[in-house]
Amino acid sequence: MTTTGRRGFASDNNAGIHPVLLESITAANSGHVVAYGDDEYTHRAEKAFKDHFGSAAEVFFVLTGTGANVLSLASFTRSFNSVICAETAHIQVDECGAPEKFTQCKMLPVATPDGKLTVDGIRKHLHGFGFEHHAQPRVISISQPTEMGTVYTPSEIRSLADLAHQNNMILHMDGARLANAAVSLDLPFKAFTTDAGVDVLSFGGTKNGMLFGESVVFLKPGMSAEFKYFRKQGMQLASKMRYISAQFEAYLTKEVWRTNAMHANNMARLLYEKTSSIPGVKITQKVQANAVFAIIPAHLVETLQEKYFFYVWDESICEVRWMTSFDTTPGDIDGFTSFLASKMS
Amino acid sequence: MTTTGRRGFASDNNAGIHPVLLESITAANSGHVVAYGDDEYTHRAEKAFKDHFGSAAEVFFVLTGTGANVLSLASFTRSFNSVICAETAHIQVDECGAPEKFTQCKMLPVATPDGKLTVDGIRKHLHGFGFEHHAQPRVISISQPTEMGTVYTPSEIRSLADLAHQNNMILHMDGARLANAAVSLDLPFKAFTTDAGVDVLSFGGTKNGMLFGESVVFLKPGMSAEFKYFRKQGMQLASKMRYISAQFEAYLTKEVWRTNAMHANNMARLLYEKTSSIPGVKITQKVQANAVFAIIPAHLVETLQEKYFFYVWDESICEVRWMTSFDTTPGDIDGFTSFLASKMS
Amino acid sequence: MTTTGRRGFASDNNAGIHPVLLESITAANSGHVVAYGDDEYTHRAEKAFKDHFGSAAEVFFVLTGTGANVLSLASFTRSFNSVICAETAHIQVDECGAPEKFTQCKMLPVATPDGKLTVDGIRKHLHGFGFEHHAQPRVISISQPTEMGTVYTPSEIRSLADLAHQNNMILHMDGARLANAAVSLDLPFKAFTTDAGVDVLSFGGTKNGMLFGESVVFLKPGMSAEFKYFRKQGMQLASKMRYISAQFEAYLTKEVWRTNAMHANNMARLLYEKTSSIPGVKITQKVQANAVFAIIPAHLVETLQEKYFFYVWDESICEVRWMTSFDTTPGDIDGFTSFLASKMS
Amino acid sequence: MTTTGRRGFASDNNAGIHPVLLESITAANSGHVVAYGDDEYTHRAEKAFKDHFGSAAEVFFVLTGTGANVLSLASFTRSFNSVICAETAHIQVDECGAPEKFTQCKMLPVATPDGKLTVDGIRKHLHGFGFEHHAQPRVISISQPTEMGTVYTPSEIRSLADLAHQNNMILHMDGARLANAAVSLDLPFKAFTTDAGVDVLSFGGTKNGMLFGESVVFLKPGMSAEFKYFRKQGMQLASKMRYISAQFEAYLTKEVWRTNAMHANNMARLLYEKTSSIPGVKITQKVQANAVFAIIPAHLVETLQEKYFFYVWDESICEVRWMTSFDTTPGDIDGFTSFLASKMS
Repeated sequence: MTTTGRRGFASDNNAGIHPVLLESITAANSGHVVAYGDDEYTHRAEKAFKDHFGSAAEVFFVLTGTGANVLSLASFTRSFNSVICAETAHIQVDECGAPEKFTQCKMLPVATPDGKLTVDGIRKHLHGFGFEHHAQPRVISISQPTEMGTVYTPSEIRSLADLAHQNNMILHMDGARLANAAVSLDLPFKAFTTDAGVDVLSFGGTKNGMLFGESVVFLKPGMSAEFKYFRKQGMQLASKMRYISAQFEAYLTKEVWRTNAMHANNMARLLYEKTSSIPGVKITQKVQANAVFAIIPAHLVETLQEKYFFYVWDESICEVRWMTSFDTTPGDIDGFTSFLASKMS
Repeated sequence: MTTTGRRGFASDNNAGIHPVLLESITAANSGHVVAYGDDEYTHRAEKAFKDHFGSAAEVFFVLTGTGANVLSLASFTRSFNSVICAETAHIQVDECGAPEKFTQCKMLPVATPDGKLTVDGIRKHLHGFGFEHHAQPRVISISQPTEMGTVYTPSEIRSLADLAHQNNMILHMDGARLANAAVSLDLPFKAFTTDAGVDVLSFGGTKNGMLFGESVVFLKPGMSAEFKYFRKQGMQLASKMRYISAQFEAYLTKEVWRTNAMHANNMARLLYEKTSSIPGVKITQKVQANAVFAIIPAHLVETLQEKYFFYVWDESICEVRWMTSFDTTPGDIDGFTSFLASKMS
Repeated sequence: MTTTGRRGFASDNNAGIHPVLLESITAANSGHVVAYGDDEYTHRAEKAFKDHFGSAAEVFFVLTGTGANVLSLASFTRSFNSVICAETAHIQVDECGAPEKFTQCKMLPVATPDGKLTVDGIRKHLHGFGFEHHAQPRVISISQPTEMGTVYTPSEIRSLADLAHQNNMILHMDGARLANAAVSLDLPFKAFTTDAGVDVLSFGGTKNGMLFGESVVFLKPGMSAEFKYFRKQGMQLASKMRYISAQFEAYLTKEVWRTNAMHANNMARLLYEKTSSIPGVKITQKVQANAVFAIIPAHLVETLQEKYFFYVWDESICEVRWMTSFDTTPGDIDGFTSFLASKMS
Repeated sequence: MTTTGRRGFASDNNAGIHPVLLESITAANSGHVVAYGDDEYTHRAEKAFKDHFGSAAEVFFVLTGTGANVLSLASFTRSFNSVICAETAHIQVDECGAPEKFTQCKMLPVATPDGKLTVDGIRKHLHGFGFEHHAQPRVISISQPTEMGTVYTPSEIRSLADLAHQNNMILHMDGARLANAAVSLDLPFKAFTTDAGVDVLSFGGTKNGMLFGESVVFLKPGMSAEFKYFRKQGMQLASKMRYISAQFEAYLTKEVWRTNAMHANNMARLLYEKTSSIPGVKITQKVQANAVFAIIPAHLVETLQEKYFFYVWDESICEVRWMTSFDTTPGDIDGFTSFLASKMS
């Protein structure tokens, strides 16, 4: 079964490059530029991050979302530390053990109904400090939006940051889709990151229209001294850095982040509205960003996938995930929901 | 001192994207495509690799040259193994210890006059097999061309492959600039890789005109079963893979590799000819690819660097490295050599 | 507060060396013996293991229980694998992340009421095989007896072994206190290890009367080729191996394992009987080996600890753990339980 | 060929336990003692180390010499660092890559004629500080005495310490046989460790008469905060610690270290005197501790080894190593040298 070219709701990674961002690459393709990031494109992009996240913010560009997460964790941990995350977190279930490979730390997953960590859920792991037989808790890591399509409020984030800091830990945010959260909350990035106590952020661009390009953003001073070595050793240092930087500059200064995320979120909302009214479809999570989770009859999955690509999230209950992206069209939604409705009846 | 925009001979990574390759990215930017490599662009690029390296060749695309090298080594080693390389090898001096980080293997550097390993140079490390106190030799790694701009002949490579195989080891080739070697030898890739006994190859595109994109090529069957996991865990799996694949397809099927490498090599030859006749300049290595190594008076370095960017290779003797690239112009050479000659007199 | 010399129920590691085992050390202290294990003491001890575990059993001596567990796991895993264990497992909570440090694998903890894994509890982790984004499940690890003092039956073990093997995984058993399980089941070691499908076993001696000495036992042929390198690289190869081997030989051939474990189990049974009848003491686990778990009034802990050393297991509910050992006396039990009873009233 | 029981000059690890040290184990075998080091035996041994190395010295007991070296390095490094050592160093050639496994650092071996690092030999590696492509030099590691049986003077050590400190690096000393160096120099330990600028020391006991027991000694304040976690995670924390501690206390307070090392050194001196006068035997290193290196006719090796066990150090030139130990007798020397002389004629 060839899948190329089939549209669908499998992943926002299946979309291409937004035209404005592709244009930024073409525009940067002129003459010699020092490799590895000591260039004007990168310096301008760095400034754009300070404009969005505060003047203390220091950004480093990397190549993949996994790279951003793993290097964020590495910057604050030694191998005897542990990292607390939701059991649905990307770092726990979707990165093939990359965090353990690079940091050698223990991951402590916490069960949640909606992908969101809570103070109560974390507390049972906050013990054994100073006891050499026990891996030392050092990081709380949350995803915003979560892998379940839900969004933390700023005060929820602040509670987790306070808990972390009270225990000499840090709060990491996996923001592979941070733009979708910002649009959902209708808040600037800073309001629910820097201002909510987050220490280090993985900020993604690829899932929202970039060719490639992710970043690690240290939100407080004095945290980044070792990062450049970890980035190189972690095989995440791009030689022709200007092409990541140019995209990020355009992404942040030309509202591409907002336009694209708003569209994707709206399409998810539309998909939710159309599917939730179909008898036999049960929506399982709040739709706050660009994902819709639903339980559907198992016998329909293959039929649906032949026309529209998507993934089954939990086979045991036939829960599926539908992701929208910056290039999802109302026609995609209409076509899919009509097809689904026709098969349900 | 701003360096952006200054032309020079610092690195082939300072050049941009070749227009044909940029066009391949633009052409691929249409519609939805399955992420992570299960797409038509990737399948066509894989076929192009088989056309060049033989039907057993299996290629995997990665993000950086360090990634290609490290994952090549990881595929054949366990942590108690050792890897033998030249003491000038990229894996030894330019990757911030990434091979040790990921593979945890011991690197055994061998001193060489020209960056080329020899059977005699390696032999002292071929002992202690089966002795548990000693890291077990498992890989011989060579660079083609070497970091000193020299090129192995096919028979030299065959000798090293035979030595490796006699000792139950494998031969890895770092081909970050393999096109420059192929042009230098005037041979197809296969003649000095697959046919010379190489087991696994890092094949680069970035230094010869691609935006980004490197690859690991297994040249014999049955070697790649674990690779996909290491690639993901090594944070080297691109989500929007099509944009690497499309470039590689164009690179290999449209002779971009040859055109660009031939030009760069010719420019290095021209630079060599013009500088070697300047009194006070001593060329230190054979110029067989796109690098020229020379000893120049130390007091001139800063003056030269103000107009033309390049790196000092060995400060103790003021040996410098000049790299040419696909976009170096005869005018660059003329301007630089005239300036250099004027300062020497 | 000095703790030296105070008797108690903190750990079977607080007891000393059984006289027969100390005598075996003294007896081995004569003349020169080849270091690192190529000696007659070791060869005889190896034979004793084959006598107990079957002729295919291959044993390797190591220095610590953590070492035995970690090297067992390392022998079957690559860094992209995962290991499933109870959330109370020693490898999960008591080894400071040593398994992640050495193997770089992901640990997948499963909640259990009694420290025992079940087929149902494991099944949710048995997915994603062949999917490169997901750490690949490779080992099920159980403790016998468990850290909660409970003991698996042979048929429970067989079920887990079958589940493992059906999924191309292996079953590891942490037998730091295996002798206590054998006595509890009244079965020879082989009946619930080799014959129940266990692949690799950590077999401990220290907690049951040895000065030091743990071991890894491969129970099937063809599994141990890489072990000697991992043992050396894992810093677990004793130079004066004869002193571990001599102890193990005496331990296995002179019934020290049985005598000591039977005594410790009997003392735990006695402790259980005496404490379970004290009002206000709630026994929380079945007493099947040499541990008693109980909930006691929190305000009594310090008072009790001043005379008898022991640990609080779960502070949130004031659950404590009392371990007995080969040198626990009925007088210890009487003294402690009388003291406890007197404080409860 | 069975080797058990044959006397010889293979290794000081082939000797047994010195009676005074065995007695210290027996004497400690009484009652309950808190496991893992919080006990009076350990506290007294810690005091003995302060008496020998200065009041700032903090000692941690570990299980193997490799463990002491690796954990010393881990305490000062991150994975992007490098460690400079002699190419004959134990950490480079005899530990199966354990340093790379645990620290993931790059080892930079330096060729030496006699196993001793010099300022000049190190300098070529002291570059690339702050350059992210290059592993960052962090430790200079020397062995005292060296693996070639030579001994550094205090001023040689001071020069290396100064070089290290000028470059924000630290000086590690592998003192697996430190007592032999102290006797050779006729100096207290402190004079050529703490007072010569050494930062961290591996101090060994096993090769000089202990059953087992090695240690890491931090010689300056503020260096040891993370050590306890690395020791546990490195599988180097002994549960029944008292038996290491009791030996070390006796070793340091009862002059066992001196008596044994003096004897071994004297025996090496005697062996040197007797063999150096045999025609056809060429002594290749100064005999300053308890090792003699010699080139002998290759055809004699097997014959000699049948009666006296020893190792060939460098097969290419038939250089052999003869180690003496605390229990080598003048009769051993006489027997061996007579046998050797008889075969040479």
